[in-house]
Parts: sequence; C-alpha cells; structure tokens
Amino acid sequence: MTELEIKVPASPVTGCKIKIGTNILGSLWKEIDSDYGKLSKFIVTDENLVSAGHLAKLTSSRDVPHFIISPAGEISKNINTVISIIEAMEKAYLGRDTIIIALGGGTVGDIAGFAAAVFKRGVPVIQIPTTTVAQADSSVGGKTGVDSSLSKNAFGAFWHPVRVYIDVAALASLDERQYRAGLVESVKHAIIADSEYFLFLENNLDSILKRKPDVLKKTAYRNCRVKGSVVEEDPHEKNKRRILNYGHTIGHAVEAASGYELLHGEAVSIGIIAAGLIEQEMGLAEHERLDRIRKILKKLGTPIQLPKNITENEIIDLMKRDKKAVNKWPKFVLISNIGEVYTKDGQYAVEVKPEIVKKILKEMKKD
Amino acid sequence: MTELEIKVPASPVTGCKIKIGTNILGSLWKEIDSDYGKLSKFIVTDENLVSAGHLAKLTSSRDVPHFIISPAGEISKNINTVISIIEAMEKAYLGRDTIIIALGGGTVGDIAGFAAAVFKRGVPVIQIPTTTVAQADSSVGGKTGVDSSLSKNAFGAFWHPVRVYIDVAALASLDERQYRAGLVESVKHAIIADSEYFLFLENNLDSILKRKPDVLKKTAYRNCRVKGSVVEEDPHEKNKRRILNYGHTIGHAVEAASGYELLHGEAVSIGIIAAGLIEQEMGLAEHERLDRIRKILKKLGTPIQLPKNITENEIIDLMKRDKKAVNKWPKFVLISNIGEVYTKDGQYAVEVKPEIVKKILKEMKKD
Repeated sequence: MTELEIKVPASPVTGCKIKIGTNILGSLWKEIDSDYGKLSKFIVTDENLVSAGHLAKLTSSRDVPHFIISPAGEISKNINTVISIIEAMEKAYLGRDTIIIALGGGTVGDIAGFAAAVFKRGVPVIQIPTTTVAQADSSVGGKTGVDSSLSKNAFGAFWHPVRVYIDVAALASLDERQYRAGLVESVKHAIIADSEYFLFLENNLDSILKRKPDVLKKTAYRNCRVKGSVVEEDPHEKNKRRILNYGHTIGHAVEAASGYELLHGEAVSIGIIAAGLIEQEMGLAEHERLDRIRKILKKLGTPIQLPKNITENEIIDLMKRDKKAVNKWPKFVLISNIGEVYTKDGQYAVEVKPEIVKKILKEMKKD
Repeated sequence: MTELEIKVPASPVTGCKIKIGTNILGSLWKEIDSDYGKLSKFIVTDENLVSAGHLAKLTSSRDVPHFIISPAGEISKNINTVISIIEAMEKAYLGRDTIIIALGGGTVGDIAGFAAAVFKRGVPVIQIPTTTVAQADSSVGGKTGVDSSLSKNAFGAFWHPVRVYIDVAALASLDERQYRAGLVESVKHAIIADSEYFLFLENNLDSILKRKPDVLKKTAYRNCRVKGSVVEEDPHEKNKRRILNYGHTIGHAVEAASGYELLHGEAVSIGIIAAGLIEQEMGLAEHERLDRIRKILKKLGTPIQLPKNITENEIIDLMKRDKKAVNKWPKFVLISNIGEVYTKDGQYAVEVKPEIVKKILKEMKKD
C-alpha cells in the first residue's frame, strides 16, 4: 500500500471571556453588537425566560430573530428541538456569519450550544446563564448535548462559548428549590479545588440564600475560576476534568432511580455524602471533614440521605450502566482533603469496590 | 463587571493516515482491529455497497454492528438518517469507546462522518471511500454534513477521519457516468495546484478511463497530496482552502438549476469552463490554456456547455443565494496558470463583476 499522512493542524488557543455583574442584562446588547457587529444574531431561550421578561430586557424589545423553547425544561432537551432551531435559523435566512445567543438555564445552554456546534459546520455561541446551576457550572466548559429518544446526551459536541455573561440579578426570580439545588455544584467546586472557597461558603451561606448580589457575584467568580482552570487543563475530559464529576457517579444513578423526580443538584447532594462515606471507609477522611460538608448541604436543604423508595440494588444496577463505566463499573472521584482531589498513579478517577458502595448506601438509608 | 478569561487550549496536531492500494478491502479488518483493538466498531454503509459485496469483503462476513443507508444516495443525506444511525448505535449498546467505519461514496462519508462528530460528543471515524469523487475529494479534509428539510448541509461539522483507506479496486463496479463525473475533481486538483499532475492526466486519461489499477493508485495519491496539503494549511476554510472551490461557484448554481439532474462533477465540469472563460475575459489566460482543459473534460465526456433548458438568469439568481455569498454575490477562485491559483491582496477568492459572468454564460449557451 502507498501511504501518506495529513497533519491536521492544532487549533489556535482561543479565549472565552466571562463577565459577571448585577443587572447587566439590559446593557449587554450594546456590547455584543460592538464585539460582533458583523455577525447576525439569533437568540435561543425558553418560555420561562420570556415570562420573566428577560428576553425583552436583553433585546430592549428590539426585533431579533429568536427561538423560544417550549415547554421549558429537560423534556425539550432533544434532537427534535435542535432541528426546529436550525430550521428557524434557515427560515430567517441566517448563514455562517451568525452568532447564537443562549439565554436561560442549563437546558437552554445545552440545546443552543449544540445547535451552534452543528449549524453549517459550526457558528460561535454566547452563553447567558440565568440559573444557579448554569451560572456555576454548565455555561462554562463547552459541553453541549441533547437526548435521543433512547438516552440522555446521545447527541453532543464540545463547543466552547466565545463569551459568558453572568447576571446574578437574573437569579432573583428563580424558584427556591431550583435555586438551592443549583448551589450544590458550587459546594462541589469548593470541595474539589478550593478550601478557601469552602470556608467562604460556610461563612456566607445565609447571604447567598438571601440572594444578595454582592456575595452572589463573588460566588459566581469563584465557580468560574475553579471550572475554568480545570477545563483549561483538560478540555476533553481525558483525566483531570473528571474531578468535576465528584458526587456525580452515585448522584446520576440516584437521579435516574428517582425517575428524575429529584433535581440534578439534589441527587448530587446525596452523591457528595456518598463519596464522603466512601472516603471514610477507605481511610481517606476524618469524620470532622464529612460533618462540615453535611452541615453545609443541610443548610442548603438538599437531601443527604437516600430516599426511602430507592433501593441500594437499583442504584448499583444503574451504576453498572454509567456511560463512563469500564467493564460495567464506574470509577470514582474522591478527595484527600477539602480542596484537594485524591489521585492514584496520576489518575483522578479511582477504583472503589462494589461492596464498599453497597455498604455505604445501606448506611445512607438509616435515619 | 468582574471579568475573567478562560484559555481554551489548542488541540494537539493530529494525523490522518491515508493508505492506497488495490484489492485491499479484504485485508483491512485485521489492520483496523490491530490499530483500534480497544474500540468497538460500527460500520455505516449503503445498500449499493452491500449488493456489490463490499461490506461482506470488509468484514469477512463477521458479525459487526452496522447501519445500511437505504435508499442509497443524496436523498438519504439528511438529519433523520443520522438520528437512525445514532439510535442503532445505542441499541447495539455502543458507548464513547466506539469507532465508526464509513464504507461508501461521498454521501455515506458525509453522513457517517457527521454521526461520528456528534455521537456522545464525538467518536473517531475511518473513511473507506469507494467512488471516484469520494476517493479524490470528500473522504479527505474533515467536512461532514447532512441536509435539513430546507437546505443542503444545514447540519455539519469539521471532523477529520483518523484513517482513510482507498481501494481503487472498489471503483471497478462503479457506474460509468458516476465514474467519469467523479474524475472532474481530480482535474480540478491538477488545475489549481499541480501542473505536472495535469500533464499526467493528459497522458494517462485512457488508462484511467479503462480503470487500470496502477494508474488509479497514482491518481489517488496525487489527489490526496493536493487536497491534504491545502487542508493542512487551512483546515477551516478561512482563505486558502477556498481554492478547492474552483469551478464550484457556477457549478453549484448549475447543479441546482438542473434540479440535481446533473451530477455534482458534471456541474463542476461546466463551472471549470466558466471559470476559464472568466479568466480570459479578465486577461488572466491565453486561449491555449482553456483549450487544454476543455480537451481533457471532453475526453471525460462531462458537459462543457450550459444545458439548453437552463437560463443565465436562473444561474445568476442561484449564485446570489450561494452560501458563501457576501452582499448577495459570491467571490471566485481563478487561476493564473495551470497549477497556480490567482490571488489578489493575499486573497484566494476574488471579485468578478456580475456582467462578466452574464457575458460568459451567454457564450456557453452557443453551440
């Protein structure tokens, strides 16, 4: 055989600017237009954001082509919604010189980010997250995806936003349960990477729960710093990025076992406690550490025990089908200290025997 | 506003190995399995390839999970086929540790390449092109895409194959019209980048048309070298990659005006002559050069005049809607010599006044 090889060049290092403020939504358009004046704009948002007046605030009631996801929420996070968005863009005569602006929570960001990744081989996207979970987590890092009729995130791409605008004032109208569940990702960030941030959360949780803008801006900044530095180091989740999965291995299984009755953050809250118990079981932690974590989650009001109607076996079964499972059993992210992930042979996701998981799950059923 | 910036790291330089041979299809599986033993395999092909026995030859009748596109051809190049492929992969319990193998012509490569780009945020793909157009052009370079119900390639991604295997023996069963039309992209490669290759084509066209393996291997090699070097320099078509569009600006419009009765290569054949006439009109070429090009296309038997039932105005109208048009008029790739693209101010796509295009289109209607 004759052979030749083509070198696919490295992409250039690009930047994602994150801007954080209070009540900035109304002034963003001017900035976006000055930065991306040559591009056509297309907004993707959902019906809740429209009701809350956020779309009108962003556009100052200008007539900008847009797509409103309806119904809002996970139920619309599927490939059919993406098809509808692409067709709406074509009907608006938009081409490759378009920038998509995603205004909303994690679902909107995932859908709009994926649409941007695939529209005519990719157009840039700006993320304007409006929920605690999207501001802390999903808007940064480039993961996008939607569900097929068979499974979650069957379709997806890594597609980094060119800008992320975080307006903490948008959180004011967020439903209390959503608000609190979203904060679990902030707690997770502190646990895996920033002990000072953990102390900050312990000291300021009351103000955060009262949604005081100044403390929310600080929280957003610290979240983006943690998430950003992890993503910079390992954008495609070959190793270190897995640490963001702390509390998620059991968390995802609990979420699915609840039939998605539990919010993602609520399930992760349970998963974080489970990870802490595993650490104790493996001799990686003192009781005092887990008590601090438990205390903060208790104050958040997210669950820290297994719901009565979910059995250990259900969770074990679901874990075997985890998308990151190798030989039908997933690896775990654990910490050695608050702010410091445990590694073994340079790996951030480590083995934990099923028996240990079963044991701690049993413990988590007790009152 | 508080600001921070995340640097999205450069992707590493990666390689795409291209291997060219005769009757290699039956021995590829061993090589793929040795290079990618840890990954599950999933084959995407179409019903024509199955009938021709190519699928069985590739797998040695092993039971490999696969998807057969049916009906074969452009009509299946749409997002619904991609959804069916992804769901078939899920039903086969395939995860991220999967490699997709695309066996077929340009359509199969486009569909399977796009499915690989979006399945669970992207899995690697191997291209095994089996037509003249796919072997010369579409299998190399990473452009993938499928149509929406409204327009061509509305969904797409740049997704480079990790391997391209070119078996020139697969061309033996190709329909004569398809075979000849696909060779137009080879002529294009010679015109834009390699005057020696052009000479080679002039001297060897008889053997190529007789599908003699040795000369076909040389042709494949030269095509991949031209395409590969252009793609290496400009993978995302910011400037130089546009030269691959030679003959395509008018070609695409002619193809659409014919209601896709003309094959892509046939329309590009007309487009190449049109580009040559524009070059003459702009004082960039002698008659002798266009005569050489005309002679080679005549021998190929692809059209070099505008079909009677297509008017100049139809073409002009379609050109205004070209996806690369800026202010409703596309730019042109022209050559200054065979093997050398004309540039103006460092740009490979240059302005040509609509009047010139109208004039030469009129000329192309005459007998």
